[in-house]
Amino acid sequence: MSELRSKFLEVYSVLKAELLHDPAFEFTDDSRQWVERMLDYNVPGGKLNRGLSVIDSYKLLKEGKELTDDEVFLACALGWCIEWLQAYFLVLDDIMDNSVTRRGQPCWFRQPKVGLIASNDGIILRNHIPRILKKHFRQKPYYVDLLDLFNEVEFQTASGQMIDLITTLEGEKDLSKYSLPLHRRIVQYKTAYYSFYLPVACALLMAGENLDNHINVKDILIEMGIYFQVQDDYLDCFGAPEVIGKVGTDIEDFKCSWLVVKALERSTEEQKKLLYEVYGKADEACVAKVKELYKGVFAEYERESYEKLVKFIESHPSKAVQAVLKSFLAKIYKRLK
Amino acid sequence: MSELRSKFLEVYSVLKAELLHDPAFEFTDDSRQWVERMLDYNVPGGKLNRGLSVIDSYKLLKEGKELTDDEVFLACALGWCIEWLQAYFLVLDDIMDNSVTRRGQPCWFRQPKVGLIASNDGIILRNHIPRILKKHFRQKPYYVDLLDLFNEVEFQTASGQMIDLITTLEGEKDLSKYSLPLHRRIVQYKTAYYSFYLPVACALLMAGENLDNHINVKDILIEMGIYFQVQDDYLDCFGAPEVIGKVGTDIEDFKCSWLVVKALERSTEEQKKLLYEVYGKADEACVAKVKELYKGVFAEYERESYEKLVKFIESHPSKAVQAVLKSFLAKIYKRLK
Repeated sequence: MSELRSKFLEVYSVLKAELLHDPAFEFTDDSRQWVERMLDYNVPGGKLNRGLSVIDSYKLLKEGKELTDDEVFLACALGWCIEWLQAYFLVLDDIMDNSVTRRGQPCWFRQPKVGLIASNDGIILRNHIPRILKKHFRQKPYYVDLLDLFNEVEFQTASGQMIDLITTLEGEKDLSKYSLPLHRRIVQYKTAYYSFYLPVACALLMAGENLDNHINVKDILIEMGIYFQVQDDYLDCFGAPEVIGKVGTDIEDFKCSWLVVKALERSTEEQKKLLYEVYGKADEACVAKVKELYKGVFAEYERESYEKLVKFIESHPSKAVQAVLKSFLAKIYKRLK
Repeated sequence: MSELRSKFLEVYSVLKAELLHDPAFEFTDDSRQWVERMLDYNVPGGKLNRGLSVIDSYKLLKEGKELTDDEVFLACALGWCIEWLQAYFLVLDDIMDNSVTRRGQPCWFRQPKVGLIASNDGIILRNHIPRILKKHFRQKPYYVDLLDLFNEVEFQTASGQMIDLITTLEGEKDLSKYSLPLHRRIVQYKTAYYSFYLPVACALLMAGENLDNHINVKDILIEMGIYFQVQDDYLDCFGAPEVIGKVGTDIEDFKCSWLVVKALERSTEEQKKLLYEVYGKADEACVAKVKELYKGVFAEYERESYEKLVKFIESHPSKAVQAVLKSFLAKIYKRLK
């Protein structure tokens, strides 16, 4: 394991211990054990990309200056706040989607004795974020900006999730509602803000920057987040299940995937008619027909997007900020999982 | 309708309109309509006691000085934040408890097309609170204290809900776990902080007070909140269904009600044995036997608590604060619903 990763996991243990002895609540033994098990099950088991990139970004903003132990700890703590936020969304999303597995294990709500208590556990996860922020950042000049940032990004994520949920409402399956602008709007709000903008915004605040002066950084990261989600949609359909860790079912589930939206746009009337017939059916032959219509659309998009993003990044006046954004882009370009 | 109440409802319309045009999110027409319907269904339909008491309390703290229009609006906005918080808890609690009705109408998640989208709607409700606070209080010196306050109280409420959920876990029904300290702990965290302390704390912050100087106000309000919940437990069992608006089922549901805890404490070995046998059964004769064992315990408690609370309040050095607390107590003493 990389040094950074093991440092990051060390900070998890510190934060967890603090939360389990939070003076704002009198735990019973049972409830303390419950929270500990719930945290270990849901928080640290992902790829940790979002969390780790707070520290990466902060280092790059410091342009090679050695970080103090205190700075490393604080950057890790902010990284963990994003991982906590992610855990909170995933626990609740899995209940709403009635999912089976997550990160290679049964979804939390499917664990014995948990069930719908998982909703409240999601809420507890969410509530841990301001507890961590208050304990470690209350005295910082950027404390209130951190609170505002997490609040705004959570609001945007929940709002994106809402449009996603109401457009894919059972019994209202209607391909004609799916369009590139709708896909973009869902992805931008549901994924890009918290996965791409939030880590960099945390690093900027720690570095003493005013976020109002970095609107273009936000715009670039949102574009990158959308590109990331398009890759995700592509991998769901064409990725190797043994590499991506799941068998994609976006076609069967009638998802507003970038691929279907793009295929609709490019199709002849005849192809469109076929797509309307076969999309959303859990039948191998139908799925194969859909995939046939998807061929080629992604390769072109990937190259074009990459070039656009690089140009966008190079137009930024600060070399340090460019380095942050390029490091992000390098992590995701041509990814296979 | 009282003048205050109609003013309060006016402010609801203003806040709702602002939220439906929040620049942090690009609504689709469908999602804007969805949020509007969801708000109207879940936010303004309660007794509004918690929200209204922010304004009451603020007036009393101002010792009769006429409030400006701006002050009235802000106090109403904080009152609505508490009502939004309450709506968020209720929407999610109803899903977890699989409840049928709420405030005389079907629970939100039982509405056609809603279902588990209600979880995300609960999250949206919760996220509206910092949106309201940011829009109207960002420039106030007490803005950060407001954020901290709402965060801490929400954390406490979710933690109280957690102990309640894990002690009444299906398949682990065990009366020997129920005790007065456990009951007190659940009630204190799950109900008292947000229903009693939060409204007064909001009014204190608006009046420029530092909450750290008002620990005893918090202690008194928490005691009052516990007293309120004991009344609730009593009314669930002995209240008139046509007055309290529901048929109580705490006995059948094996709830950790104050009555059962108190009865366990006072019982002879023989009575205790009976209680273990009949508690938690949906059988009329069993319920009647439980009620028999409950007789008389509440009347004594009600008198004693009231006297204790009055003494506690009168020990407070500020007459204005005493007035706030007495007004609160007067609203709940000997209530029938």
